[in-house]
Amino acid sequence: MNILILGGGGFIGQKLARKLSENGTLRGKAIDRLVLADVASPASVDAPFPVETTTTDITDRASVDALIDAETDVIFHLAAVVSSHAEAEFETGMAVNLTGVLNVLERCRVLPSTPVLVFTSSLAVFGGEVPDPIEDWTIPNPQTSYGTQKAIGELLVNDYSRRGFVDGRGFRLPTISVRPGKPNRAASSFMSSIIREPLNGVEAVCPVDPDFKHYYLSPRRCVENLIRGAEIPAPELGMNRCMSMPGSTLSIRQMIDAMTDVAGPEPAKRIKWEKQPEIESIVSGWRYDYNPAKALRLGLVADRDFRENVQFYIDDDMPAG
Amino acid sequence: MNILILGGGGFIGQKLARKLSENGTLRGKAIDRLVLADVASPASVDAPFPVETTTTDITDRASVDALIDAETDVIFHLAAVVSSHAEAEFETGMAVNLTGVLNVLERCRVLPSTPVLVFTSSLAVFGGEVPDPIEDWTIPNPQTSYGTQKAIGELLVNDYSRRGFVDGRGFRLPTISVRPGKPNRAASSFMSSIIREPLNGVEAVCPVDPDFKHYYLSPRRCVENLIRGAEIPAPELGMNRCMSMPGSTLSIRQMIDAMTDVAGPEPAKRIKWEKQPEIESIVSGWRYDYNPAKALRLGLVADRDFRENVQFYIDDDMPAG
Repeated sequence: MNILILGGGGFIGQKLARKLSENGTLRGKAIDRLVLADVASPASVDAPFPVETTTTDITDRASVDALIDAETDVIFHLAAVVSSHAEAEFETGMAVNLTGVLNVLERCRVLPSTPVLVFTSSLAVFGGEVPDPIEDWTIPNPQTSYGTQKAIGELLVNDYSRRGFVDGRGFRLPTISVRPGKPNRAASSFMSSIIREPLNGVEAVCPVDPDFKHYYLSPRRCVENLIRGAEIPAPELGMNRCMSMPGSTLSIRQMIDAMTDVAGPEPAKRIKWEKQPEIESIVSGWRYDYNPAKALRLGLVADRDFRENVQFYIDDDMPAG
Repeated sequence: MNILILGGGGFIGQKLARKLSENGTLRGKAIDRLVLADVASPASVDAPFPVETTTTDITDRASVDALIDAETDVIFHLAAVVSSHAEAEFETGMAVNLTGVLNVLERCRVLPSTPVLVFTSSLAVFGGEVPDPIEDWTIPNPQTSYGTQKAIGELLVNDYSRRGFVDGRGFRLPTISVRPGKPNRAASSFMSSIIREPLNGVEAVCPVDPDFKHYYLSPRRCVENLIRGAEIPAPELGMNRCMSMPGSTLSIRQMIDAMTDVAGPEPAKRIKWEKQPEIESIVSGWRYDYNPAKALRLGLVADRDFRENVQFYIDDDMPAG
């Protein structure tokens, strides 16, 4: 079992690598080799099997060809230019999020083998003129270039799979919370930082009302779902191999209450409430009402309760001290 | 008003050119120039304005760049490799139906102008795991490469429009009946030939049961809808600029009854009923239950009755004698 993680340097890629290392198997077979590839050389992980790290440029077909061969059994495609980046730099987004996916699929098409491809899409494919809740049969009507490129990736993964070029499956990720690391300039940054910073003993700003609702998944459950996604037998995937990954609809108040339940009353006091209309105007257009029935039926899971998300952050990511 | 028809040699392209010539105006302005472009040099049409015909290869960016400039006001993009061709030749389908559309959009992106682009998609984008009726918010879950490529085109037209690179609008064409010309090898060929051939005094084979239902539009109404599609003011298009073009759900029996109403009892006697399981197995998977609410609201129309489709064939396309 040879595995490749494209985007292996990102925080989900790294967590996925560690989980695969912990499991030692995938799809019922011992893992023989794991390759972590990213634009910058990814950190390696300790594992009972060989782990290689390498740089790659998925916008370059030759670079992709060098990475994937008939020995590659499973590819996790996590590499992407994120939402704000793809919106600011249209050509970069198209190159990484569209040409990049096409390069991977085209490489698989010419191989004698049929690798499993786990494609990470995003709930950002949804928006615009669609009723709530968003079902498995709701049209992606993205309102960002990132969402557009991911929705195109889903269509390609389906068609290349239907034709037998690859055994693809795609999962639309909810907003991940609690994300490790530092605040960034994404409009969604506060959705992790209002929990992470206070737990770390640092102040954080909440730019929206406590009743603002969104749809979340912990990094730990996301990784478990990606692994489950790789393991679903192809016939069970049906005629649409891309689906929404389960998450939970929560208000800011519910998230903070869960943090207080887990860590006591002090962290919540470190949240400063400062409405930021420019953030509010972006995130208020995001959808939060999803019915991920198909993924649930196939064994993917949401967090049981946001207390889990808080505890996972403390256990998995909180800096010591 | 300078107009370009990509796919100007096809039967819809030719009918559109003749209708534009008859109208003399588009979007409230006199037409100054019409260019018909296709892989093979298209026939010209008589018009009160200059008409140019040219060959082009939309898979070649330079060829597209030579065709579209800042003077181009409206582009009708009808050029495509059809369903059976795209299924048989994957690379050709991707080149024409995906790269071709991208070449047009990318050309528009770098122009100082914002041309109107009327993109012809297809109801073949639908299929798979979606409930009936197919609404404006139903996910395209295509089960052919052609449908996949058209669904991707829709996403691109939306995003390039949202970003202001082009003023795009896309319409998913129903099965056109009564198509002029000769039977071809498409699985849908009989859906026109069982009307066209008998009206022409020739026998035709119906390979399905008389209660087989499908979704149809006449060529004349299709052309009217494409022109209306070009004229819809951009703000009225909303957040999804691609929509299903109205048609009518009809059984074979209803179509034949309409023919008899218009042309008397003789033509129906020229239909031979010979079930063809290989045709039936393809077309029985096609969807026929659509609710094209948005397009109807925007002024696009279906045929009032299949008698119209029959009469239009007789008036517009039936060979003399």
